[in-house]
Amino acid sequence: MRYVVIMAGGSGTRLWPLSRQGEPKQLLDLFDGKSLLRLAYERVASMIPDERIVVCTGAAYADRVREILPELSADNLLGEPEGRDSLNAVAWSSAVLAEHDPDAVVAVLSADHIIEPVDAFQASLTEAFEVAEADGDALVTFGVVPTEPHTGYGYLHRGDDVAGFAHTSQVVEFKEKPSRELAEQYVASGRYWWNSGMFVWRAATLLEQLAQLMPDTHRQVTELAKNPERLAEIYPTLTKISVDYAIMEPVSAGRGSAHVVAVALPITWHDVGSFPTLAALMAHDDAGNAVRGGVVARDASNNLLVNDTDGVLAAMGVHDVAVVVTDDAVLITTLDATSAMKELVVDVKQSFGGAYA
Amino acid sequence: MRYVVIMAGGSGTRLWPLSRQGEPKQLLDLFDGKSLLRLAYERVASMIPDERIVVCTGAAYADRVREILPELSADNLLGEPEGRDSLNAVAWSSAVLAEHDPDAVVAVLSADHIIEPVDAFQASLTEAFEVAEADGDALVTFGVVPTEPHTGYGYLHRGDDVAGFAHTSQVVEFKEKPSRELAEQYVASGRYWWNSGMFVWRAATLLEQLAQLMPDTHRQVTELAKNPERLAEIYPTLTKISVDYAIMEPVSAGRGSAHVVAVALPITWHDVGSFPTLAALMAHDDAGNAVRGGVVARDASNNLLVNDTDGVLAAMGVHDVAVVVTDDAVLITTLDATSAMKELVVDVKQSFGGAYA
Repeated sequence: MRYVVIMAGGSGTRLWPLSRQGEPKQLLDLFDGKSLLRLAYERVASMIPDERIVVCTGAAYADRVREILPELSADNLLGEPEGRDSLNAVAWSSAVLAEHDPDAVVAVLSADHIIEPVDAFQASLTEAFEVAEADGDALVTFGVVPTEPHTGYGYLHRGDDVAGFAHTSQVVEFKEKPSRELAEQYVASGRYWWNSGMFVWRAATLLEQLAQLMPDTHRQVTELAKNPERLAEIYPTLTKISVDYAIMEPVSAGRGSAHVVAVALPITWHDVGSFPTLAALMAHDDAGNAVRGGVVARDASNNLLVNDTDGVLAAMGVHDVAVVVTDDAVLITTLDATSAMKELVVDVKQSFGGAYA
Repeated sequence: MRYVVIMAGGSGTRLWPLSRQGEPKQLLDLFDGKSLLRLAYERVASMIPDERIVVCTGAAYADRVREILPELSADNLLGEPEGRDSLNAVAWSSAVLAEHDPDAVVAVLSADHIIEPVDAFQASLTEAFEVAEADGDALVTFGVVPTEPHTGYGYLHRGDDVAGFAHTSQVVEFKEKPSRELAEQYVASGRYWWNSGMFVWRAATLLEQLAQLMPDTHRQVTELAKNPERLAEIYPTLTKISVDYAIMEPVSAGRGSAHVVAVALPITWHDVGSFPTLAALMAHDDAGNAVRGGVVARDASNNLLVNDTDGVLAAMGVHDVAVVVTDDAVLITTLDATSAMKELVVDVKQSFGGAYA
């Protein structure tokens, strides 16, 4: 049967002080009152019944996830005791589902992005399930059809079409984030897609590749699936590595018994990773301000004005700035200079301690 | 004997959300941890003993005033049940002092301004006390020697010098805030000083003029001085009027038995009435930021960054803005566009209610 695992862990600094150690960006109600996690859930809710949708997140976020997704089944929340990079979240959840249903076919989806249109995403997801069901040796990934020569994404070099599926190709090679020049060549060739970091596979197939390439991890996550009470003991000892490095790239290079294919994902794909992208994706008032919470704006345009407190945020005479107000931290920055957020949060941590970071 | 009354009432919107109904600007610790009230007190503390310094303020601010001035004598805080413009604060405090000491000579000083140098102020105050002691018919005011043709102040047109005092002149006329052209003429002539709104007089002389010009008010404040328990009953019924309109201008025009003289005040006189002036008067960091409270600034210069909460205010990539963070309101505005503060606070009040204004 088909299952979906939504990955909603991680914590970043680029949306500080909105995203914190206690509240990653996927859990923030930024889009007409909905979070990225909620949107990710709703994208699949019409395709997969609630009892077969699993969320994998940090254990610390469990209560917040249940608030956001009241329909989530009680057992379907996998809480990582700590982040151990993507392989372990992916492998653990596949092992848990395989323990429960040896024939599980699992879509591992992320909640990091705004994806439009949703029906194109659903069509690709359906095709990916069908590919994995048809080919027990396939690890299926999704290739976002590039709209520009983006240098911030990895690329999939696609090879031959997969017979019987309209939008599926073999994957020849995973490519790191390219230079501008290379990205332009990739896009012009039509043979490269963006690496989405989302997958569909039979759980058994993923675990088999894991056994071949990362036998220790395979043993550990299998043990975890059988004995969940050992989570706090075992999870922190897992090798920290991404699923691309550990599985997808080696398998695509022939080191593994399976092979990698990609389904085209013809969507616009917005990474909500910075205040400028957040501002662009939120609803705007007549003056171009993206507003959330109690805000008064006067002679103020094209700002991101977010107030997560019960108080008032008043902006006057300012343009193209981001102001974010939380209960214990306020950020003011320009919408074109958020690249140093990481350094700023380090400054905050040094001056005021980790509680604010 | 000599007394000082420091006026520290009022509430403005131009420093919102710092100054609130509950905390007027005179009580804010903005200047190296000191408030304007504290600075006003320290300007006279070496000249007048604590037991003869009185503070007149809103009753609601009494606790805060006692925090700021722990040396203030218990009986020396006059708390107005509500603001009734300057005449009543001035007349009430003079009546209270006259009741206690019929020969009281009272300096009525404001706490609205930064005054430098302090010794020039003290020399003028001493001369003003001496003038009032020597001339029982004098209402003494202070004329700030203009440094520019300011159109935001009223002016005193000074006449003949007063014999025996080096820096004292008769006052011919009080002038309203002038046009630019007129202000330039005033300053060029050397015959006009800025009206400081500060005074020295014998309490008995002021009360005598009050009896002639505002007999109802005279009766009411005299009754209040004798029966302080009637404060809440009587004070709200006092006619709302400024001391200039009620007393100083009529007396200078000959309608009263006294006369008005002015002592030169050769100081720089900074009205802390807006964020740009506040920013200019506060201490600055190396990047020209005026900072108070927990603030992290990165690539940010010439800003006013005030954080009155226990949290963090982080500013990055912004210049020439004012950011003020309080427990229930945040303001972001440019330092050159604060003229619409009044309208902004009206907007806030309309959207969120009076508690925030």
